[in-house]
Amino acid sequence: MQRIYTNFMPMANVFGDKWSFTSFGESHGAAIGGVLDGVPAGLHIDFAMIREELERRAGKGTKGQSTKYQGVSPRALREPDEVEWLSGVIESDQVTKDQGPSDQVPSDQVPSDQVTKDQGLTTLGTPIAFLIRNKDARPEDYEFLKHSYRTGHADKTYEQKYGIRDWRGGGRASARETAGRVVAGCIAKQALRLKGITIHAALIQVGAETDPAQFAETIAAYKRDGDSIGGIIECRIKGLQAGVGEPIFNKLQAELAFAVMSINACKGFEYGTGFEGVTQPGSAINHISGGIAGGIADGTDITFRCVFKPTPTTPKALAKGQRDKVPSTKVGRHDACVAVRAVPVVEAMTALALIQLL
Amino acid sequence: MQRIYTNFMPMANVFGDKWSFTSFGESHGAAIGGVLDGVPAGLHIDFAMIREELERRAGKGTKGQSTKYQGVSPRALREPDEVEWLSGVIESDQVTKDQGPSDQVPSDQVPSDQVTKDQGLTTLGTPIAFLIRNKDARPEDYEFLKHSYRTGHADKTYEQKYGIRDWRGGGRASARETAGRVVAGCIAKQALRLKGITIHAALIQVGAETDPAQFAETIAAYKRDGDSIGGIIECRIKGLQAGVGEPIFNKLQAELAFAVMSINACKGFEYGTGFEGVTQPGSAINHISGGIAGGIADGTDITFRCVFKPTPTTPKALAKGQRDKVPSTKVGRHDACVAVRAVPVVEAMTALALIQLL
Amino acid sequence: MQRIYTNFMPMANVFGDKWSFTSFGESHGAAIGGVLDGVPAGLHIDFAMIREELERRAGKGTKGQSTKYQGVSPRALREPDEVEWLSGVIESDQVTKDQGPSDQVPSDQVPSDQVTKDQGLTTLGTPIAFLIRNKDARPEDYEFLKHSYRTGHADKTYEQKYGIRDWRGGGRASARETAGRVVAGCIAKQALRLKGITIHAALIQVGAETDPAQFAETIAAYKRDGDSIGGIIECRIKGLQAGVGEPIFNKLQAELAFAVMSINACKGFEYGTGFEGVTQPGSAINHISGGIAGGIADGTDITFRCVFKPTPTTPKALAKGQRDKVPSTKVGRHDACVAVRAVPVVEAMTALALIQLL
Amino acid sequence: MQRIYTNFMPMANVFGDKWSFTSFGESHGAAIGGVLDGVPAGLHIDFAMIREELERRAGKGTKGQSTKYQGVSPRALREPDEVEWLSGVIESDQVTKDQGPSDQVPSDQVPSDQVTKDQGLTTLGTPIAFLIRNKDARPEDYEFLKHSYRTGHADKTYEQKYGIRDWRGGGRASARETAGRVVAGCIAKQALRLKGITIHAALIQVGAETDPAQFAETIAAYKRDGDSIGGIIECRIKGLQAGVGEPIFNKLQAELAFAVMSINACKGFEYGTGFEGVTQPGSAINHISGGIAGGIADGTDITFRCVFKPTPTTPKALAKGQRDKVPSTKVGRHDACVAVRAVPVVEAMTALALIQLL
Repeated sequence: MQRIYTNFMPMANVFGDKWSFTSFGESHGAAIGGVLDGVPAGLHIDFAMIREELERRAGKGTKGQSTKYQGVSPRALREPDEVEWLSGVIESDQVTKDQGPSDQVPSDQVPSDQVTKDQGLTTLGTPIAFLIRNKDARPEDYEFLKHSYRTGHADKTYEQKYGIRDWRGGGRASARETAGRVVAGCIAKQALRLKGITIHAALIQVGAETDPAQFAETIAAYKRDGDSIGGIIECRIKGLQAGVGEPIFNKLQAELAFAVMSINACKGFEYGTGFEGVTQPGSAINHISGGIAGGIADGTDITFRCVFKPTPTTPKALAKGQRDKVPSTKVGRHDACVAVRAVPVVEAMTALALIQLL
Repeated sequence: MQRIYTNFMPMANVFGDKWSFTSFGESHGAAIGGVLDGVPAGLHIDFAMIREELERRAGKGTKGQSTKYQGVSPRALREPDEVEWLSGVIESDQVTKDQGPSDQVPSDQVPSDQVTKDQGLTTLGTPIAFLIRNKDARPEDYEFLKHSYRTGHADKTYEQKYGIRDWRGGGRASARETAGRVVAGCIAKQALRLKGITIHAALIQVGAETDPAQFAETIAAYKRDGDSIGGIIECRIKGLQAGVGEPIFNKLQAELAFAVMSINACKGFEYGTGFEGVTQPGSAINHISGGIAGGIADGTDITFRCVFKPTPTTPKALAKGQRDKVPSTKVGRHDACVAVRAVPVVEAMTALALIQLL
Repeated sequence: MQRIYTNFMPMANVFGDKWSFTSFGESHGAAIGGVLDGVPAGLHIDFAMIREELERRAGKGTKGQSTKYQGVSPRALREPDEVEWLSGVIESDQVTKDQGPSDQVPSDQVPSDQVTKDQGLTTLGTPIAFLIRNKDARPEDYEFLKHSYRTGHADKTYEQKYGIRDWRGGGRASARETAGRVVAGCIAKQALRLKGITIHAALIQVGAETDPAQFAETIAAYKRDGDSIGGIIECRIKGLQAGVGEPIFNKLQAELAFAVMSINACKGFEYGTGFEGVTQPGSAINHISGGIAGGIADGTDITFRCVFKPTPTTPKALAKGQRDKVPSTKVGRHDACVAVRAVPVVEAMTALALIQLL
Repeated sequence: MQRIYTNFMPMANVFGDKWSFTSFGESHGAAIGGVLDGVPAGLHIDFAMIREELERRAGKGTKGQSTKYQGVSPRALREPDEVEWLSGVIESDQVTKDQGPSDQVPSDQVPSDQVTKDQGLTTLGTPIAFLIRNKDARPEDYEFLKHSYRTGHADKTYEQKYGIRDWRGGGRASARETAGRVVAGCIAKQALRLKGITIHAALIQVGAETDPAQFAETIAAYKRDGDSIGGIIECRIKGLQAGVGEPIFNKLQAELAFAVMSINACKGFEYGTGFEGVTQPGSAINHISGGIAGGIADGTDITFRCVFKPTPTTPKALAKGQRDKVPSTKVGRHDACVAVRAVPVVEAMTALALIQLL
């Protein structure tokens, strides 16, 4: 094999520059986590929401909702994602009484229940570092990867890039990394909520199926068949004021596309009239803005869609003769539709993208 | 109208941080142009190629090819885009003879005809500033915009953002700004070519039509009808070595999406199996990488597609009762399929995105 | 000579990321200039102030004041720095009447004379590009530099870095580049003035002389002797509100040091108790903050000092046997104390540093 | 008190953009630490060196050397700084055998003892996150700070900036934060060492004393007197190749000044002829480059100096009537000359500054 070790791009593990999120951690190393720099002081962190979002990402569902998709990660069942907070927060009851929240989170916009309860943690304005231990790290399960690459995974390109590779469960390429994004994105969502901005993503298509009532059965069928299937997620942003976004390179749609296309397995992004609009004449669709004009929010709802490919390593794919020597113990675990678990990650990346622009 | 003037994002007119391109200029101000910082010393600039790319963007076609689309800009006919070079280059025959090009452009990779001819300009390694005068600036043509907004244009969102607006021809929102991108992108393409990397974009769909032989007639029909139509562009990158791209936030596909989605009228981006792949099971498509695995180039060709919406302001749209008071003198000029002229801009932005990662 | 061509640092010709200033231009190329991105819309630009600052930098003095230092540049006499504005501004009387300035420059803080006069240019919120033509470019005067390096100049290190060099008058290393900084800094100063912040720099020492009344004679004596001398500039910032500056890496003093140490010939920076404070015990000086505590402005005046070395190329230095083959025609022109002309550049860089932090 | 909560600067807790170091942690929170992004794969980390540098910073001395200064931190004695590695490294014996280190650290430059021993950790090219627990956190010791500010400390400006403050031991303003810098800087030093670049800082002046043999006694005298004193540190960089540094804003001296002035208590930076050179004519000193010409390294040694002010809170200062209600239990602990412990921090910041430029 030819050795090609390219230069690294600066700050390739940092997202955003206003609320900059630095992500770290390998799937089977000591921990994954991140540092969020730029969060204003005085923001009260809602832990229940973070836990709930992490459970959505783990496939356990919110309020019992998505377990029906059978997409729950076996690792997630054994190893709940417990966030350990290292810095940037202080017990809310330690905040000097005569101090209000900073001007960036004016007290008159903070829902009263948040201010009065005052339990949990409040941000200090300093970097918020957190980690999630890899309690269930099982490097030995991945010994087979030490000298082989999986089709459709990043094993080979990582090695081509770095000349060295953490073979333990995909290392940093594992989707486990997205748990950190969900934590950071959830803090961003809480700040956006205080400004009246909400983000809601949902699965709108699984394979050819577009009726949500049929998604669970469709996914189950692919799973029974030892196969996997892709999905389309639609995300709606409400409450974003007109004027947000930049007119040239940092158009709002470009920032959203960048954020969402950085999620593992995402293969496409569109908004407004999207790809299907190509067949419509200007006279028919020129009024559809998708919430953005000239790269700048126009004050109406923004709707975009993104598509996720199917998991590559499945029993059926292996049976077709892939030379990946995946041990049989790993075969049963496959996630038949990764788009299900990508939903909260899409919301998280959308929140992180928007918070940079406000 | 509520006044909402949001903060600006830092460096919103700068693209990239390795070869950073700063864009400036309003459509009907003194000039448009840019500064390209980070270009290595010793690169010989091919002017003929820059001129040719600017003519493609102006719709004049390369070697007579695209005029058949009738997409040529009337302004372009009267006002050829002449690039004035302000800094960062020196006459090639002034370069001290015993100096070779810098290590970033090793002499053994430079095609011999470039080194020996040595006419034209050579880069100094310092910022390359250039401008294109707005000779045909006709602010008076746009007096009607002083107090009105056009549907589907950015007139209103600009004013919502800045509280002030250059009403002269769309100001900075005008697609004229993309001429600067083409110049910068063309210099990037030249550097990529020395590394064996080529970028080729082409229109693959106009409306419902997918046969290129029919594109000219399809567009002409919409134009005759006083209407406009969208198009899909496919872009292929050849020769990119494995290992380029970053695994987490700056995945190669995210960088490409960001670059391409920043082009006016672009509504979607996809690569590899894209949106249509959603109906295919993993066992059928898991070998299709689209040239990228885990965010990192795998050494095979990269192919992506992007969709452009139709021009919003058309005679038919106006007849439907838009309240924009566009004077009749402006009506005949409309570009029936902006996707035609977007082709070199897609190539330019792709080149600018890739050069940051090498 | 060993060929060492190091990589470039990203965006090395860009200062700041909130109001980012991109500088371009060689001393004897077509033009020098810059692009200022991030300036809010609605700022009225005071041209007289920019002209005056450029004349201070050229050594012509403000109101006849500094010509007594005999530091005036011969080039400046022949070639007044005329700024050509390319973008980002509009004639103030073209601004739609019902629009106030943006919230970043609230109208109640704008001195009434600025609002009412309304002649000249108003910023659009888009990048402000400007250039100053090199009318007096005389590359032929510098033919001697094509194959030689000057002691104390950057001729050699430039070639070591880039492998190629613009030998014409020092190219980009020439202090002429600082004219662009003065223009950009002056726009920043105008925005700061609207917030009640003023910056005032002055020469406080020339050689061993600390009595300003004696500076002109001291410099004249060195000039008569064919020699040169250094100087210390003190700069005072008034009106900066408490809270500006960042506590860790971007301490206010670090930002100021970075800005000022980037000026040609500057050899040191200190604030508060500075170097001389080393002999004082804590009990004697712990109340002196220099206007900054923990990297953050405390609301009192900030005072810093910086030192400039003497011009290296002087008749006396040449007579001592330097092998630089500087032709006799160039000998008489030397600037005996560059610190004189550095005063407005120190103010400009201070303004550019502060504006990033607000 | 007026409430002024300014905006934050983007990424104010991140140093550098090639090897970006994100710092986090409050003095008496759960932990301090950091994330280092951009370190190439294949670098073998020398733990003994990191431990040694942390002990220098804690004042315990290297090989018994600096304890004579009696500057050792009482907290450091009780709480050795133990670094916990969270990500970005792998046990060296797990690295696939047929992989050499990346091209950025070519094997022929790696000292053979490092390659062969192969114990400890090797970098993966992914972000290196680490933390140091605050085992000895004693927030109760700082209850007195909850409602008071210390003279010469950042207690008040922090509150002016954020509107909220971690009163526990100075929170993030505590010099404890510099432990993270030392860890990150030490990894940078190890990479520099492989390129033949070394950094050595030393105390050269304490009060008026310039004889190192007398430093210990001088400091002890101030301590006996219940007072404190400043110091000057000189730092020498050897082996840096010509061509490093950028000619305009990012001059090598500006980058060094920025890095060093960001250290707590640093009041000035100078290089080459510095402040004292002001009295020397150009003909006498124009050959002294200080290792840098035009902002670019010229290949000779670089020497700079920086000055540190005395600790503000001392028994003598308190006796003079400061209203800080510092409890008597804290009085005896004071560090009579913080410059002693700043020496390894100066080296660390120098290393972090240089590694960005290579």
